[in-house]
Amino acid sequence: MFDAEMFIENSLEEIRKTVGESRVISACSGGVDSTVATYLVHKAVGEKLVAVFIDDGLRREGEPEFVMRVLKSIGVKARLIDAKEGFFAVFKGKTDAEEKRKAFREQFYSTLGRAAEEEKITCIVQGTIKADVIETVKGIKSQHNVLSQIGINPEKYGYKILEPLRELFKPDVRKVGRQLGLPPEISERMPFPGPALSLRVLGEVTPEKIAIVRKATQIVEEETRQLGTFQNFAVLHNDRATGIKDDKRLYGNIITVRIVESEAAVTAKAAQVPYETLMKIAARITQEIPTVVRCLYDITDKPPSTIEFE
Amino acid sequence: MFDAEMFIENSLEEIRKTVGESRVISACSGGVDSTVATYLVHKAVGEKLVAVFIDDGLRREGEPEFVMRVLKSIGVKARLIDAKEGFFAVFKGKTDAEEKRKAFREQFYSTLGRAAEEEKITCIVQGTIKADVIETVKGIKSQHNVLSQIGINPEKYGYKILEPLRELFKPDVRKVGRQLGLPPEISERMPFPGPALSLRVLGEVTPEKIAIVRKATQIVEEETRQLGTFQNFAVLHNDRATGIKDDKRLYGNIITVRIVESEAAVTAKAAQVPYETLMKIAARITQEIPTVVRCLYDITDKPPSTIEFE
Repeated sequence: MFDAEMFIENSLEEIRKTVGESRVISACSGGVDSTVATYLVHKAVGEKLVAVFIDDGLRREGEPEFVMRVLKSIGVKARLIDAKEGFFAVFKGKTDAEEKRKAFREQFYSTLGRAAEEEKITCIVQGTIKADVIETVKGIKSQHNVLSQIGINPEKYGYKILEPLRELFKPDVRKVGRQLGLPPEISERMPFPGPALSLRVLGEVTPEKIAIVRKATQIVEEETRQLGTFQNFAVLHNDRATGIKDDKRLYGNIITVRIVESEAAVTAKAAQVPYETLMKIAARITQEIPTVVRCLYDITDKPPSTIEFE
Repeated sequence: MFDAEMFIENSLEEIRKTVGESRVISACSGGVDSTVATYLVHKAVGEKLVAVFIDDGLRREGEPEFVMRVLKSIGVKARLIDAKEGFFAVFKGKTDAEEKRKAFREQFYSTLGRAAEEEKITCIVQGTIKADVIETVKGIKSQHNVLSQIGINPEKYGYKILEPLRELFKPDVRKVGRQLGLPPEISERMPFPGPALSLRVLGEVTPEKIAIVRKATQIVEEETRQLGTFQNFAVLHNDRATGIKDDKRLYGNIITVRIVESEAAVTAKAAQVPYETLMKIAARITQEIPTVVRCLYDITDKPPSTIEFE
């Protein structure tokens, strides 16, 4: 049985030892992993921590405001970095899933690196958890927060890396969050990938496509909150399909709704959501987003599928 | 109340009057509409009719053999035209839905026209039904068998067109088929689009992609036969998604399963198929087709969607 209290106690000590006299920077996305990691380090080293929220333009509706508010409410000093333009620039022309992940990762580290330099900080907190490491090692996907895969030995660059959650699976990360007293809107939050909505736009990532999938995400989350499933989201296809709007043919967008049951994301089941809910989601998405003519529901387990599409 | 017997009686007379001393050619795909039209003309003018099955390479598994066998069994003289190469050639590089429909249509008429010339025939039977005309007029999609839309006035070219079913909706076409004594495997057959699997491969149509969607179609049809729904099929996306096969990442194909309830295809409901059936389909498709990692189920009604994707 995992003992969150004991884990926290040991972690605080280890973090203090690693950090020493340095100051620390943490990119907090508002997800469970990065917020728990950030808060744990804040507990350990207090004012030596600088948290940043990198606004890459790929987040959910209202997310930058929400995350800044939460961090403030728990006493963590945080800075918002508007990096939208830079992220959309690196996605230009990229359509392959791994290329997009790589573009995100490089832009993420160059943005974070610049902030660290400005703050003269050489110690970085990562919210890496055990599933990230396993999947990267197995070659299933490259998690943006596993540095060794991109051939970076941070020490070579004079950086220290803190990964206080690297031995934990998601359910234990949530326990730590609860034990630390984080608000439930964080500790019970649905998993959300680091590269955010960029993985949920198939093909090239553009501001227009992100706006469509952001709106669809909001509808899916609103309509499925009561299900208690592990992860609920929307994906915008690059493919188009025919539909009928205002009595005329429209060669429009396709949205897939993905809802899964899982413990720790290593395996997952496509949730058997009541048709009433699915039909309501399809109706809302096609009514509220003018370009969308078709909604699909993902019926594949992991494996052979993955939870995310990219 | 539609009277099939009366309809047939009137049609036979009208067909004989239109045909006169000519001979007639009919491209029979094995679908309800074209087979009923073909058989009706056969009844009216007997040996003056030449039926052809154009093998465009886009049909279901075993279809050419099946259709030739049925036509023979009901006494209709038929010829198989192997036109696979020509069809795949015209699809090369075409990704837009309407462009693909247009390419199919032009290749279809040039193939049929060549056969008509060889046979010195100037009268063509079309299986056009009322829904085809309505949708074409409304601009929802261009049915391949509505000639006026492509600016063809057949009489200008010395052709006569016979469209004996143009005033009927699908349920009445089936009644005529039954009344004519066609085998139930024809009269009760699921609707299948003229351009066949080419509409069910998003993006460019290639022999490899047709082979994938043909196999998926077979699985969907096998697993849903007992549902009694209006139309059940599979669509191969051009988009790809990540999955896991043999414990390794695979950036593979996506298949959508589409099952609808409808009376006459003018409107349709996404069928609420039991999850047990959907999960079995997803498992079979991802197991039996090596490149497929993900299956989706279409949850959109028509409107705002159409039944087919293109």
